[in-house]
Amino acid sequence: MALEHIDDSEVDIVIAALQSDLTSFLNAWRPLFSRFHLIIVQDPDLKGELKIPQGFDHRVYTKSDIDQVIGPTTSIVFSGYSCRYFGYLVSRKKYIISVDDDCLPAKDNDGNLTNAVSQHLANLTTPATPFFFNTLYDPFREGADFVRGYPFSLRSGVDCALSCGLWLNLADYDAPTQALKPEHRNLHYVDAVMTVPAGTLMPISGINIAFNRALVGPALFPGLKLTGEGKLRWETIEDIWCGMCVKVICDHLSIGVKTGLPYVFRSDKGNPIESLKKEWEGVKKMEEIIPFFQSVRLPRTVTTAEDCLLEMAKSVKDRLGGTDPLFARAAEAMVEWVKIWKAAGASHSTLGV
Amino acid sequence: MALEHIDDSEVDIVIAALQSDLTSFLNAWRPLFSRFHLIIVQDPDLKGELKIPQGFDHRVYTKSDIDQVIGPTTSIVFSGYSCRYFGYLVSRKKYIISVDDDCLPAKDNDGNLTNAVSQHLANLTTPATPFFFNTLYDPFREGADFVRGYPFSLRSGVDCALSCGLWLNLADYDAPTQALKPEHRNLHYVDAVMTVPAGTLMPISGINIAFNRALVGPALFPGLKLTGEGKLRWETIEDIWCGMCVKVICDHLSIGVKTGLPYVFRSDKGNPIESLKKEWEGVKKMEEIIPFFQSVRLPRTVTTAEDCLLEMAKSVKDRLGGTDPLFARAAEAMVEWVKIWKAAGASHSTLGV
Repeated sequence: MALEHIDDSEVDIVIAALQSDLTSFLNAWRPLFSRFHLIIVQDPDLKGELKIPQGFDHRVYTKSDIDQVIGPTTSIVFSGYSCRYFGYLVSRKKYIISVDDDCLPAKDNDGNLTNAVSQHLANLTTPATPFFFNTLYDPFREGADFVRGYPFSLRSGVDCALSCGLWLNLADYDAPTQALKPEHRNLHYVDAVMTVPAGTLMPISGINIAFNRALVGPALFPGLKLTGEGKLRWETIEDIWCGMCVKVICDHLSIGVKTGLPYVFRSDKGNPIESLKKEWEGVKKMEEIIPFFQSVRLPRTVTTAEDCLLEMAKSVKDRLGGTDPLFARAAEAMVEWVKIWKAAGASHSTLGV
Repeated sequence: MALEHIDDSEVDIVIAALQSDLTSFLNAWRPLFSRFHLIIVQDPDLKGELKIPQGFDHRVYTKSDIDQVIGPTTSIVFSGYSCRYFGYLVSRKKYIISVDDDCLPAKDNDGNLTNAVSQHLANLTTPATPFFFNTLYDPFREGADFVRGYPFSLRSGVDCALSCGLWLNLADYDAPTQALKPEHRNLHYVDAVMTVPAGTLMPISGINIAFNRALVGPALFPGLKLTGEGKLRWETIEDIWCGMCVKVICDHLSIGVKTGLPYVFRSDKGNPIESLKKEWEGVKKMEEIIPFFQSVRLPRTVTTAEDCLLEMAKSVKDRLGGTDPLFARAAEAMVEWVKIWKAAGASHSTLGV
């Protein structure tokens, strides 16, 4: 993938640090990350200083940075995986790439290490095709094209806002699935990228994603915190909730979401049986929110990600707020997030970026 | 793929013979086809007797069979690739698999010959998931599952009606694309199957497909014949038109369409530059029909594929019939097809199957 047209200074890599020692993680990613600026956000619940190897252009943000920018009385909680959203907020770059700190670069079917960074950037800088499905996958990939019957008027595509990568080894299952199949590992590398069609909902995972911050930045936000949410991915749905919002917003704005390559290799962590013993609300909540996201529509007059999010918040409050305080809080968090996003943009020199 | 639950007698393989000598074609497919009954329909424009190697349980249908069943005064034309629809009509089996006679079994990334028959049957006999997108592809494939955030209420899926396979070597491009890239060959084997989401349109190709005849048989029909249509795939859109109808009908009936595996290897045939010299209406027609198919809705009371097709025909006549006689003829053909389909079902002993 030739990405000469992207300046390294247009890209921030955001890492949510849920563990103190990032040595092996960053060393594994060194060949891919060292060209770029790293925003490392320390989980505010994590005490002590992070261990970061030499040779990275980076800045660490801690609880005190978060408190300084956001203030202590906010309805937004940045603990656990949600701390990465603080990195999205303080970045000033066009593109963000974000990978969980338990992921390593993945190998393809030939055993070669893949470059997740260049693949994400290729996904974001070639058009998406959400209005008609191309059966031979990404038509902008080298060696591919649009198949017979694909309307010519739709072949130029639209901007791609979000690139959702996948996972080898420990796949991104929920607590019940993971507990039912504790030995299950995903070994299946599918060499494809595709646009998720407009109007189609999907479970967007925060483990391995990239996005065009200029286009949809504010729509990636920490909103839905389950009661008793843990520090393991399968115990959370913050990214799933945010992903539903961002997909609806992308559809509304006629911009695209891609899924597929790049893969990352997820290391084993945690005990799913223990997670299952907690009463995991995620299953039940997903059932309640699907009909909402399937039917929510934004007013035509709304044309920016910020305004879309405010409209979404209104609908969430009206239609879901009464069923569970969780959703009322999510709606509040969405409004608050837009305020913070705008303020951060206005006073960006004070953030020290 | 263990397909013990499918009886060989539930499957017909339909071959449209556009060339007289099927020896090398059938010999290449022998290990996969010889278990099944073959319906071979000779292009009515093709003179002489077909050459078919020993050892296949088959029946050949010729122009005189077509004339006998359909009569000479029909608005439906079975010439060229459209002759395969006659095979769909005379079959009495639950599953149909249909492969063009210029296709051979394909090899996977490890160089192993793939089994297109068992893959199509696996696609048709495992559920489809058109109402929510699973990022790790077909959740019913061995080693796969639904990812975190996939609603549990949607995990049982729905019946799969149609399996659309893909093409290696000569990909299924239109005449202009093929002419622009005459040397282009598709070498990219993507090891995945997925459900095409409800509400999403796609260009369904007739080259390599399988379907559940009991569920959607009548919705696969020869409807749109371009003026001066040739005998090369890239000169036709009969399957694209029919595919749009069948996708809308599947969405309406809440049944699924899958795409991906199996691949077939398409041999080179014909000169795309010569095709391009003809004034190919396909490009222009596709632009006209997309807005129609994007917006057409069927009445809720309509619950069978036959009745869906009749409703589609009405809409085609009303909304497209005035713009071009091509569409008025297509609407007539759709109504006629349902009549023929019903009559064939009623008098099926006279067809000699």
